[in-house]
Amino acid sequence: MSWLSIPEDSDFSIANIPFGIISTTSNTTPRPAIAIGDHVLDLDAFAKGDGFSPASDLHQHLDVFSQSSLNSFAALGRPVHRAVRSYIQSIFTKDTKHPEVLKDNQKLQDAALLKRADIKNHLPMVIGDYTDFYAGKNHAYNVGCLFRGPDNALQPNYMHLPVAYHGRASSVVVSGTSIHRPWGQILRPGNKVPDLSPCQRLDIELEMGMFICRENKMGNPVPVNEADEHIFGYVLMNDWSARDIQAWEYIPLGPFTAKNFGTSISAWVVLADALEGAKAAGIKNDNELLPYLKEDKKENVLDIDLEVEIITASGKKNHLSKTTSRNLLYSWPQMIAHHTITGCNLRPGDLLGSGTISGTETGTEGSMLEQTKGGKASIQLKDGEERKFIQDGDTLIIRGSYGSGESKVGFGEVSGTILEALPLFK
Amino acid sequence: MSWLSIPEDSDFSIANIPFGIISTTSNTTPRPAIAIGDHVLDLDAFAKGDGFSPASDLHQHLDVFSQSSLNSFAALGRPVHRAVRSYIQSIFTKDTKHPEVLKDNQKLQDAALLKRADIKNHLPMVIGDYTDFYAGKNHAYNVGCLFRGPDNALQPNYMHLPVAYHGRASSVVVSGTSIHRPWGQILRPGNKVPDLSPCQRLDIELEMGMFICRENKMGNPVPVNEADEHIFGYVLMNDWSARDIQAWEYIPLGPFTAKNFGTSISAWVVLADALEGAKAAGIKNDNELLPYLKEDKKENVLDIDLEVEIITASGKKNHLSKTTSRNLLYSWPQMIAHHTITGCNLRPGDLLGSGTISGTETGTEGSMLEQTKGGKASIQLKDGEERKFIQDGDTLIIRGSYGSGESKVGFGEVSGTILEALPLFK
Repeated sequence: MSWLSIPEDSDFSIANIPFGIISTTSNTTPRPAIAIGDHVLDLDAFAKGDGFSPASDLHQHLDVFSQSSLNSFAALGRPVHRAVRSYIQSIFTKDTKHPEVLKDNQKLQDAALLKRADIKNHLPMVIGDYTDFYAGKNHAYNVGCLFRGPDNALQPNYMHLPVAYHGRASSVVVSGTSIHRPWGQILRPGNKVPDLSPCQRLDIELEMGMFICRENKMGNPVPVNEADEHIFGYVLMNDWSARDIQAWEYIPLGPFTAKNFGTSISAWVVLADALEGAKAAGIKNDNELLPYLKEDKKENVLDIDLEVEIITASGKKNHLSKTTSRNLLYSWPQMIAHHTITGCNLRPGDLLGSGTISGTETGTEGSMLEQTKGGKASIQLKDGEERKFIQDGDTLIIRGSYGSGESKVGFGEVSGTILEALPLFK
Repeated sequence: MSWLSIPEDSDFSIANIPFGIISTTSNTTPRPAIAIGDHVLDLDAFAKGDGFSPASDLHQHLDVFSQSSLNSFAALGRPVHRAVRSYIQSIFTKDTKHPEVLKDNQKLQDAALLKRADIKNHLPMVIGDYTDFYAGKNHAYNVGCLFRGPDNALQPNYMHLPVAYHGRASSVVVSGTSIHRPWGQILRPGNKVPDLSPCQRLDIELEMGMFICRENKMGNPVPVNEADEHIFGYVLMNDWSARDIQAWEYIPLGPFTAKNFGTSISAWVVLADALEGAKAAGIKNDNELLPYLKEDKKENVLDIDLEVEIITASGKKNHLSKTTSRNLLYSWPQMIAHHTITGCNLRPGDLLGSGTISGTETGTEGSMLEQTKGGKASIQLKDGEERKFIQDGDTLIIRGSYGSGESKVGFGEVSGTILEALPLFK
């Protein structure tokens, strides 16, 4: 399909064209790029090298490709994202109408077509606000069972609205960033007073993240059936969680320091348009939803195959979990509609998390808390190792993709290594 | 004390010099200014008119005064804030050593010294993250009594750590901004399913806000005794709250849409240095705190006189509440130390709220929820009007100050009018 050699089953097929922010050793200024196969196209160099010359309708927008984040590009709206992606696809197509632009232009290839192994990824967006939903019903149910038993596992509001909380934007980091085990207040079983300790129950949360591209003004809720136009694209997300810190602090106002030490996202934003074919129905809600949450189309949850791997300090790779992002009770448009029903303004660059995604079977859980039944059972790893929660030196990797072969649309991965807790106030 | 005529008891005495962002009809570009008496000094015009010429140590920093927010100025750190404030005080002093700069310079006065009535205030900072604490112990106790009775009013963690939650930064607005009554999901008493309705229990929360000026890198907690250097300054804050929406949504992850529709702050940031004299001890905590929360100095809560006024649609002014910001269990440095104990990074421009400030007596409550005992009693207003919660057309005003006369340090006010709910999806 492309004149560029793209490995079979690459996440970044010509059907994808995800956007990110990159730098290189020879040019350390962060700038936009797209990923394709084992390469990236540096959009700043591509634009400056007249790569967009046949696309006259895009000329007025090209300054967005010399920005250090994708926010300006996102704010142009989905019709422009669509036009840019479609034009880039046409340039990489084997029988491109414009071979002079890149295919037969060695100079521009040298300037703009870089090996993916040679670039460094940065956070793709400047994140204004980060909101984490709790739309993974199986996760909410599993955790509810651990704490309250199966009869009261889900709270009374759960089937009526997408529960969410405001998260911490400053500590969202790009895949590959290591995170030190956090210190925090912990109340140990049997104790009456807490102590300060490195977290003993450090966990992952397998989530998808979504970036907003269109602002709604304060006071103006986004209708659920118009919310799709506010979606820039998606990333994989690991919402690292300190379970013991959370258990002590979260009543009555929710998680705070148990979550604010770091949230990892994958580097490449897969455009909403690239996932139109992945739309599917989520978990059925037998409740009659209020009209502002009722969608004309029921297939607004994505069907992304997700998997989690843990690499121990010794380098052994272990499969941890496998599930699908269909395991959500609420769709992305429903999350936007509920978030804004009070008039709350969302802005380009805002990040919404899905909440932890778990299936119903063993081996499909999106957190170790669920897989170990609250830290009671052990997960067996290679070489006789076992885990209840994350140990220092462990690397956790989430991967996700839709489809296969020449039209696979994947996210790459979100990876993070947990380092030992830093000495306090050294 | 000043050659400029400053009204007796002005919040903006020469002892204050608070910073804000202004624009005028003749120059609509937002830019930094300080308030003094009934005037403001346009710092962009002052700098460009050589107003800082005798202050050679500040020349390298003057570009911060042509920015549209105070973030760059804040990031210069407290020694620079101190030097700028001190220099400006010296210029306005009756026996200034540099009368040629402004006192005897009619041209620069015309360009930079504007009547406060003629300027428009903007949000002073670009707020990265907004965190709301819950450090007002009397408020937490009063609300706890309403929901759980006096024996279990405070949760077990309350005396051990400053409880907080992440808030919504995008909807923080400057004093004078009207807010439409939010729609939201409400479960009415006796009903089994919620309905969508304009909020019926709309309330104020009397708080102080604090802006961060110094960044701590991810992974590096701020020691409590060094936290003062991270404080840029303070504002008054009204954390509007939809009590009925909150009651239905907040379990288990805390307030979300009940708070995200708007938070109002006063326009002028009073520098931490201007309030050194207002430091006082807060509410005594008989618990032995963990070492990371122990302060060398116990007087790290501010002693600001606070009052709340409600102006009804008919224009009648009514006193609602009067208290002091000493009613906090945790100090600002303790909030910073706890916020960052996990390694969470704070950045210049981040906003921390104190939580609702209430006294222990009738008439000192920082919310209508407390004053009306959960909406059971009515607050009597002039002309036979009464309130349980806010009605459309009501304007709520919070004022705050320290000291009096020629050395009064005040905040001005944070004011906001509640407008009727907008028709949905018109």
